[in-house]
Amino acid sequence: MFGFRVPMVDARERVTGTIEFVQNLVLPGMLHARVLRSPHAHARILGVDASRAAAAAGVMAVLTGADLDDPALDPAFGLFLRDQPPLARDVARYAGEPVVAVAAETEAEAEAALAMIEVDYEPLPAVLDVDAALAPGAPVLHPGPRRLAFNRRDLVAHQPGLTGTNAIHRFRLRRGDAEAGFAGADLIVEGEYRTPAVAHVAFETHVCVAWFRAGGLTVWSSSQAPSTLAETLAGVIGLPVARVRVIVPTLGGGYGSKIDPSIEPLVTLLARKARRPVRLSLSRAEEFVTGMKHPSVVRLRTGVRLDGTLVAHEAHCLYNGGAYATDTPEKITRGYASMGPYRVPDIRVDSAGVYTNVTPACAFRGFGMPQMAWAHETQMDRVADALGMDPLALRLHNILLPGDAFSTGETLLEDPHYPELLRDAAARIGWAWPIEPERAGSRVRAKGLAAIIKGMGAFSATAAVKLNADGTLNVLTSSVEMGQGALTVLAQIAAHELGVPLADVRVSTPDTEVTPFDAMTAASRATSFMGRAIRAAVGDVRAKLLALAADQLEAAPADLSVEDGRIVVAGAPATSRSIASVVAAAKVGSLSGEGWYRPSIGLDPQTGQGIASPQWHPAVCAAEVEVDEETGRVQILQLHVGLYVGRMVNPTGCELQVFGASLFGVGQALFEELRWDEAGTLTNPNLSDYMIPSFLDLPQRFGQTVLETPGTIDIHGIGETPLPAIAPAVANAVSRAIGARVMELPMTPERILRLVRERDAVPRGAEPGGAAARGARASATPAG
Amino acid sequence: MFGFRVPMVDARERVTGTIEFVQNLVLPGMLHARVLRSPHAHARILGVDASRAAAAAGVMAVLTGADLDDPALDPAFGLFLRDQPPLARDVARYAGEPVVAVAAETEAEAEAALAMIEVDYEPLPAVLDVDAALAPGAPVLHPGPRRLAFNRRDLVAHQPGLTGTNAIHRFRLRRGDAEAGFAGADLIVEGEYRTPAVAHVAFETHVCVAWFRAGGLTVWSSSQAPSTLAETLAGVIGLPVARVRVIVPTLGGGYGSKIDPSIEPLVTLLARKARRPVRLSLSRAEEFVTGMKHPSVVRLRTGVRLDGTLVAHEAHCLYNGGAYATDTPEKITRGYASMGPYRVPDIRVDSAGVYTNVTPACAFRGFGMPQMAWAHETQMDRVADALGMDPLALRLHNILLPGDAFSTGETLLEDPHYPELLRDAAARIGWAWPIEPERAGSRVRAKGLAAIIKGMGAFSATAAVKLNADGTLNVLTSSVEMGQGALTVLAQIAAHELGVPLADVRVSTPDTEVTPFDAMTAASRATSFMGRAIRAAVGDVRAKLLALAADQLEAAPADLSVEDGRIVVAGAPATSRSIASVVAAAKVGSLSGEGWYRPSIGLDPQTGQGIASPQWHPAVCAAEVEVDEETGRVQILQLHVGLYVGRMVNPTGCELQVFGASLFGVGQALFEELRWDEAGTLTNPNLSDYMIPSFLDLPQRFGQTVLETPGTIDIHGIGETPLPAIAPAVANAVSRAIGARVMELPMTPERILRLVRERDAVPRGAEPGGAAARGARASATPAG
Repeated sequence: MFGFRVPMVDARERVTGTIEFVQNLVLPGMLHARVLRSPHAHARILGVDASRAAAAAGVMAVLTGADLDDPALDPAFGLFLRDQPPLARDVARYAGEPVVAVAAETEAEAEAALAMIEVDYEPLPAVLDVDAALAPGAPVLHPGPRRLAFNRRDLVAHQPGLTGTNAIHRFRLRRGDAEAGFAGADLIVEGEYRTPAVAHVAFETHVCVAWFRAGGLTVWSSSQAPSTLAETLAGVIGLPVARVRVIVPTLGGGYGSKIDPSIEPLVTLLARKARRPVRLSLSRAEEFVTGMKHPSVVRLRTGVRLDGTLVAHEAHCLYNGGAYATDTPEKITRGYASMGPYRVPDIRVDSAGVYTNVTPACAFRGFGMPQMAWAHETQMDRVADALGMDPLALRLHNILLPGDAFSTGETLLEDPHYPELLRDAAARIGWAWPIEPERAGSRVRAKGLAAIIKGMGAFSATAAVKLNADGTLNVLTSSVEMGQGALTVLAQIAAHELGVPLADVRVSTPDTEVTPFDAMTAASRATSFMGRAIRAAVGDVRAKLLALAADQLEAAPADLSVEDGRIVVAGAPATSRSIASVVAAAKVGSLSGEGWYRPSIGLDPQTGQGIASPQWHPAVCAAEVEVDEETGRVQILQLHVGLYVGRMVNPTGCELQVFGASLFGVGQALFEELRWDEAGTLTNPNLSDYMIPSFLDLPQRFGQTVLETPGTIDIHGIGETPLPAIAPAVANAVSRAIGARVMELPMTPERILRLVRERDAVPRGAEPGGAAARGARASATPAG
Repeated sequence: MFGFRVPMVDARERVTGTIEFVQNLVLPGMLHARVLRSPHAHARILGVDASRAAAAAGVMAVLTGADLDDPALDPAFGLFLRDQPPLARDVARYAGEPVVAVAAETEAEAEAALAMIEVDYEPLPAVLDVDAALAPGAPVLHPGPRRLAFNRRDLVAHQPGLTGTNAIHRFRLRRGDAEAGFAGADLIVEGEYRTPAVAHVAFETHVCVAWFRAGGLTVWSSSQAPSTLAETLAGVIGLPVARVRVIVPTLGGGYGSKIDPSIEPLVTLLARKARRPVRLSLSRAEEFVTGMKHPSVVRLRTGVRLDGTLVAHEAHCLYNGGAYATDTPEKITRGYASMGPYRVPDIRVDSAGVYTNVTPACAFRGFGMPQMAWAHETQMDRVADALGMDPLALRLHNILLPGDAFSTGETLLEDPHYPELLRDAAARIGWAWPIEPERAGSRVRAKGLAAIIKGMGAFSATAAVKLNADGTLNVLTSSVEMGQGALTVLAQIAAHELGVPLADVRVSTPDTEVTPFDAMTAASRATSFMGRAIRAAVGDVRAKLLALAADQLEAAPADLSVEDGRIVVAGAPATSRSIASVVAAAKVGSLSGEGWYRPSIGLDPQTGQGIASPQWHPAVCAAEVEVDEETGRVQILQLHVGLYVGRMVNPTGCELQVFGASLFGVGQALFEELRWDEAGTLTNPNLSDYMIPSFLDLPQRFGQTVLETPGTIDIHGIGETPLPAIAPAVANAVSRAIGARVMELPMTPERILRLVRERDAVPRGAEPGGAAARGARASATPAG
């Protein structure tokens, strides 16, 4: 079943509108919740008077910070650090933070009750960006000691020096001797690269229904991480994990926004207080204050020889984590890729996640890599410009080849196929050096390139399978179908592994009471990690099956194999039995198997040396753009992405994922940015003011090259891979077109026009490619 | 957790009315079904005109026999023989058989549409009892060849000689030399014993909701056999078992009525035709024509020496199976116990199940054993009477002791503790021989005894477990909670086996998409069989856990054990870790395990020799009654039952089950009987005319003795054990009181008065104890 373009197994339900979303769930006696949110970015809560709301028509429960003092509860939650309360307790730390929640018979009654609540705030000084938050004397959001989350003690080393600062967590990497490296460089290029906050904008907003019943808690949630959510809720309400059931039928998109617990603890506590099922579905506006991509500031120094050989790299990477830690402690480790997919012997990297008084940043498609790629691929073009070198040639000269060591010291075991991918992508858009921008009136065209390497989170995946008496297979996983086709690909893998038709396999959706633990459907890991776990589980059940068949066929198990749903004896092709007949004859009813993939990674906390990722995903992008220097509008004429994926399970699904992730990159390149006013209020929490790509923004030519290794079982996830490469490739083309360097995303018309104006205000040639862009402390100085 | 009187884990939901019954399930767009049933016991269906019904208000689908001709379907079903159509196709075989089904927006609309359907019947001659059905020239209900059900080929040997007869299946047992045995007897006692059709009368009527969705079929059903039902429905509609999901939250009682598929194929086909979820909930009247206990006629010959030693036994056992085979092929094997729990060297048994034009008989608490016990324990008292011997002494003289061979040739491995149980029960009611009935006016008191042995069906049980990262356990089984406390007992077994608190274990209810195969919750096998499977599954997961702990503790797995939720190293008591810390440190998220119990039984089809049951359940009963010879009313003054159960998991649950099963016996002894008129129409399908015991019918003294072996893991099921002993013990007391032998159940006032009249019409002493009862061809003749 590998390599077959099968339709999604739930295609019919999806297009006929009969697929089950939590949004459509109706339970008997279900209440509806609405949330009153802080209007202040930072404020002390002096008092809450919800008495009128509690007495209002239809209101069944009102939850305030005072309810969190129940000694039976342990309400603070967080994937790595338990620092986030379901409701602001004494302090609100961002504008939009939940302060009071109401559950009523109807959503309108709950909404009406919100207006009756009086909250007395004392505004506090707020910090909105990383530099302000790290400045001496800045207000500290979380002054108390840090508390590690359950089951994450081994993943995040405790860093006691952080108490009393706004640093969430720090990461450092030391390889070779950076000082010596820079000393030996012919040229040192510096730059500061910024990316903005970006919203996920899944079609489906966050939704959760919580119900205490049958001696436990059942939660239906739009979660990408049902198993982890069950552990979180168990911790909050003090129930055994065995009694917390998280059910996720399907999602209308996630993109990382639904990994971290967010509304679920709040809805759970409301249901607990109301003693009824409670539903909360966020409005689109609320989505914008529930999670976002980490804004970043990355400062790079690159040492290079005149022949283009990279010799030293220094990075200082700051991720703006917003008001709560969420997954920031892991995200900042992505500093390991701040030099990109290149050989650099001497490296020094420091990363930090920073608390600020904005929306909590959380996982976002690409998980910290787009911030790195934006920096290193812009920097690479600036290095090429400084050297007067073809950016393609510079990349090919330094690109990682099989056997090369990465920044973490690990050797790439798989061939990432970079030279092939880079040359192919360049050729597809007609790359030729030197590039002379083609000008027609106010419009100017140019081309750009980027290459990236992406690591993956390493949480283990477990699968269980049940082989039925008719030889068909049920697969139990906690992997979430969110439109990406997980159910289809996982069924293909199981069918392939057992040797039965796809129709004979059914993959269940997560129900943590029965489906094995899986940390999350994220990080491009469903196909690759869960796929391996399923293969192992099928192997487990096959071994049991062959043991039964060996008895029945009077053969040694080692002489048996499964081919096309039949068990055959080596050397005796005429002697075969169907799987069904073996299971039936053994009277076992069903056979169960378990399998897992538990990648072993780990980085030394002092040096960042070790194993950072179980797989490395390579991608390249080549872009041709047309910039209108009168309007500032950027149009993408050609976009070609290239990936090596090991092997495609479902080529249709793979290609659609690659296009989808690339289009995400287009939005981030050109328009997407959350903006706050000076008081810390989000100014564009709606889809009129916050732009996402439409079909009109599709590149005019949009292509992809996906390389495979025939027969390999090393299947890559591909949900994120091309995304980090898009913005820098487009920006490198834009910078070349306008002769001014883009150092900050997105490339809105306003920003382009400003660059063009600044370009025209300074002498051309101050820096090849335009290094004098706004705010960039970039320089290209011949080194000592 | 063994031996603890814990409350039922779902007690709170049960008493607060929040537990989920399928009866309460509401689905979006759900239609409601009603069924038109045959008024004839046997009739050819010449035509069905449902056109008006199909056009009626609210009607969305009408299903007739013609719909079964769809070549995509294979509609006939049955646990052993596929002989039952969802709807009568060309022939209706009993009064009450479904002929047309309607699905409409409301139940009232469906009911109204039934009146618009015209069915043209040609009545056929009907046979209502086994003798009529087996008589030469009787109309044959199923003239065609027999078709074996999926996955039951090995359980029911094909018997080709049956075609063209009304014999459903035959069973024979031959041990020793019966002819020689009778030749050596001093006395031969003969008798014919009859039991009537009895209704299960579960509080919850049959209910089923079927919905085609997500590429498969989901069925919520009040089924005691969800895994088997999934296989049945998969066969009917041609889907892989992996795509048929049967969900059973809980049942309001089953007692065997919900083992065989009944309404589910019909509801499934309606849902398929309507393309909507369809619900059918039977009325109380419909319950009475959906299943029943097999009426029986058992003819016994017993050869005995004058000292009371049993030497020969011959039995001819006829079970009236009604119109379809259901589980009759297995039930008739219970002829192996037609001589009761006694040593008899020479045995000849022939059993048959017989098709008749009445409601299909199906599983019923006790599964064929009450019919046997009624015969052999009445016969034993008649043997004692014939010998002038104390019935207690006669039983003790012949009772099975450890090491004795049973009729099947198997040796009892466990001590059934009969002498202890018999002496105890007799003493509890003040047994003293000879018994002189105590008369006071028209009221007369006497005492009776009975002893029985019960075998069990041997289908395998499989369990899966999931150990969570906090050390708590989810247990996955397809065992059905139907008020008997299965969820509680299975949780206790799992908690005991893993060594964790009961609150840390959650047992899931059946959902065949994810829970492993279990043939059925029946035959007293949930605690004993599934308990063993769970213990094995916990053992499996514990082995995985200890392997992880061994790595972490740098110890050999063999040196590790689990005590009170902690893993300890032998010889190093200070070195221990919690289960939670081991699972968490290994980053595995969860660990899964599988376990099963697959009893190996099998009887030679020619001789009935082999292994009939994986466990043998002993019970005794002692009763004292008062009969009013003017009114015919029987009152039970004392009832004491005795069982050996291996070990009680939850003594409260065990005792309640024993009382409950005993009360079932009281109903069957005194009132319960389904009656048909001569045309084959049921005359009492309601709870005014069909009597079940009320609290007023409780024995005035009601006691039990439950023997255990401390520390044993050989746990018996106890859901049925005492039931077969009740009616004969009560009847032996009644017969002794009135001086006339009861040969047929139930002991209604009418029947008692008739016996008293007949007694007074014949000379006393013709047979000690009154062998000249109506219809009994009983004799006690000195043998040649």
